[in-house]
Amino acid sequence: MDFSNLIADRMLEVKASAVREIFKVASQPGVITLAGGNPAPESFPAEEIKEAAMAILTQQPSVALQYNLSEGYPRLREQLANRMEKKFGIDMSKNELIVVSGSQQGADLTTKALVNEGDGVICEEPSFIGCLNTFRTYKAKLYGVRMNDDGMDMEMLEETLKNNKNIKLIYTIPTFQNPSGKTTSLAVRKKMLELAVKYNVIIYEDNPYGELRFSGEEVPTIKSMDTTGHVIYAGSFSKVFSPGLRLAYLVFDKGIMEKIVVGKQATDVHTNVFSQMIASYYLEHYDLDAQIEKIRLLYKHRGEWMLTCMDKYFPKAASWTRPEGGIFIWVTLPEGIDTQKLLSEAIEKKVAFVPGVAFMTDINQPTSALRLNFSTMPDDKIEEGIRILGELLAEKLG
Amino acid sequence: MDFSNLIADRMLEVKASAVREIFKVASQPGVITLAGGNPAPESFPAEEIKEAAMAILTQQPSVALQYNLSEGYPRLREQLANRMEKKFGIDMSKNELIVVSGSQQGADLTTKALVNEGDGVICEEPSFIGCLNTFRTYKAKLYGVRMNDDGMDMEMLEETLKNNKNIKLIYTIPTFQNPSGKTTSLAVRKKMLELAVKYNVIIYEDNPYGELRFSGEEVPTIKSMDTTGHVIYAGSFSKVFSPGLRLAYLVFDKGIMEKIVVGKQATDVHTNVFSQMIASYYLEHYDLDAQIEKIRLLYKHRGEWMLTCMDKYFPKAASWTRPEGGIFIWVTLPEGIDTQKLLSEAIEKKVAFVPGVAFMTDINQPTSALRLNFSTMPDDKIEEGIRILGELLAEKLG
Repeated sequence: MDFSNLIADRMLEVKASAVREIFKVASQPGVITLAGGNPAPESFPAEEIKEAAMAILTQQPSVALQYNLSEGYPRLREQLANRMEKKFGIDMSKNELIVVSGSQQGADLTTKALVNEGDGVICEEPSFIGCLNTFRTYKAKLYGVRMNDDGMDMEMLEETLKNNKNIKLIYTIPTFQNPSGKTTSLAVRKKMLELAVKYNVIIYEDNPYGELRFSGEEVPTIKSMDTTGHVIYAGSFSKVFSPGLRLAYLVFDKGIMEKIVVGKQATDVHTNVFSQMIASYYLEHYDLDAQIEKIRLLYKHRGEWMLTCMDKYFPKAASWTRPEGGIFIWVTLPEGIDTQKLLSEAIEKKVAFVPGVAFMTDINQPTSALRLNFSTMPDDKIEEGIRILGELLAEKLG
Repeated sequence: MDFSNLIADRMLEVKASAVREIFKVASQPGVITLAGGNPAPESFPAEEIKEAAMAILTQQPSVALQYNLSEGYPRLREQLANRMEKKFGIDMSKNELIVVSGSQQGADLTTKALVNEGDGVICEEPSFIGCLNTFRTYKAKLYGVRMNDDGMDMEMLEETLKNNKNIKLIYTIPTFQNPSGKTTSLAVRKKMLELAVKYNVIIYEDNPYGELRFSGEEVPTIKSMDTTGHVIYAGSFSKVFSPGLRLAYLVFDKGIMEKIVVGKQATDVHTNVFSQMIASYYLEHYDLDAQIEKIRLLYKHRGEWMLTCMDKYFPKAASWTRPEGGIFIWVTLPEGIDTQKLLSEAIEKKVAFVPGVAFMTDINQPTSALRLNFSTMPDDKIEEGIRILGELLAEKLG
């Protein structure tokens, strides 16, 4: 059937995620994939999750398998609120916490609650393609703001806020950003919050990688400095526990609770109860911080090893970020190098990455950058993949 | 913080679901709740789910806990497609099936893909409040079409389609409808499909209760008669397996696959993998039809018992549907009886139901109807609840 006259306008410009399409190629046997954003499967606490699943289905099957509240499983909400308060210094007397089905849903519900068609959303340039597509499906107008080494360019941010009265939201991943691996400095975080208050817009602080620091010093979350309610914070279990269970949480000022919850009701009623109870059991009986520490050590090793290989195999004309945590490195090539074409050539040699254009607010903007991931491949594959890419780049760059 | 200048227009008229608010009252100890839409918890196959969870976390933890495809877990998609073909006579060579996080999400993704702000959605009057709110959050214009005993009034449907060129979607629950318990006849189904083709609009056939027939004869799904691709079908695990696991599936013409999948990616990436694998394991190792047969017997008993009690305790001036399956009975009182006020009085006597106004496209439309649920309460509570309601009604109706 020809649906062309029936499709809603909001979907016309949204294409299947380039990243997820690359995954299909990259998941073929023998491909060294530096394209994904998956956590290392060996980091999943599978035994503890099995114990939790058993205990829950033995003791409380009627709760785990029945409908539950849209706000989330009550005990898990309490546990997470305590963690937010103690570990992140967020004042939970002024805020609410709800459980959502992954932090992408957090962005979806936030956009649903706040952004009219035609309203503006400011995004880091480059930024996470998944959320850019979320904003696009609400017909938001995207305004890209250049990422410097210390985060979004604050002059350009203020200029954009000043010149566009339609802006509702600033979307930021301040720590170990996807795709750049950059961390926004404390000074820039303070300035961003000051501007959000001044122009009365909301910051959506997406923090899935924030606890995965393996060098350098912690920087406080923007939410922990928020005294006016201008920050919606998204934390996630995907990178520290399991992405397959689809668990994340939003923390926000009480004033917007009703609209976020109504949005959740109308979207998918509530998040998987069994998984919420598994996470709750784990927080009760195990030490999430110790689990995170194991992941940090693993990613420190892999991240530093990838950088070592890049130093060895990549030509001088390429430059790249040196992240202090997270799972991504961003490579910038001289202007004019087409990284989509480069990807086709790399895939012939059985190496996959994501071309930079996928992360741009304007997908027609040429970009000579690319994203590498270091969380899933073992050392020898990292070296082989980087060596092959290095050879390809050397051919291009002479 | 005062969010009044920041909230998106789409959320202004959507309130927290009245039904879910009533649940909070109704879940207090000692309340006989005939308000919910929960399946009987004793119907959950908890032991089999435990076995499945164990096997999966022992044999394939890295798959169960990792990211997976937006379309759904491949093996589960195959199993469900086979079931659709064999049991429902749906031609899967022309259709796609994807797994979603409950059938409410099916309605959300369908609306996202098809309905512009201001586009029309035709709904049965009364209809399921959850999906009415989904449509409202997309700023769809709702057109209610009166439910006769054999389904939507077809003259009124055609009139509505003829007079409103903005209509994109017809929302129907043709079998054991929520809230009325009514089943749309074969003739009306055929006519509805004919009109959908004639006016080139899509039917969203929501069928969570369809397999819970305990008397009368099966009526084919509208999707099984669809040769042109005008029907999107939603099936669900919530009423036959477990709602807490949030599993449902959409079946639709291949022509709309990309947009539905992109919507799913932008909304929550993919459905909980562990739960999908549990359902897949169950379908592989157990007999879902035997499980459904057990639920049918339980609900036949409870539904018929509730009707027996109503015959005994309800005054003659009240009338009600006599469903052949599902979990709901719809009671119509003489005009002028305010069932919201009646609810307050009933709750004082520790009985809860849902007033009819919750199910209307226009929430300001007065309605003297109410919805009763018979799936969760034991016999003695059903009798006590109906007796108390009957006494209240007798007072009102004299």
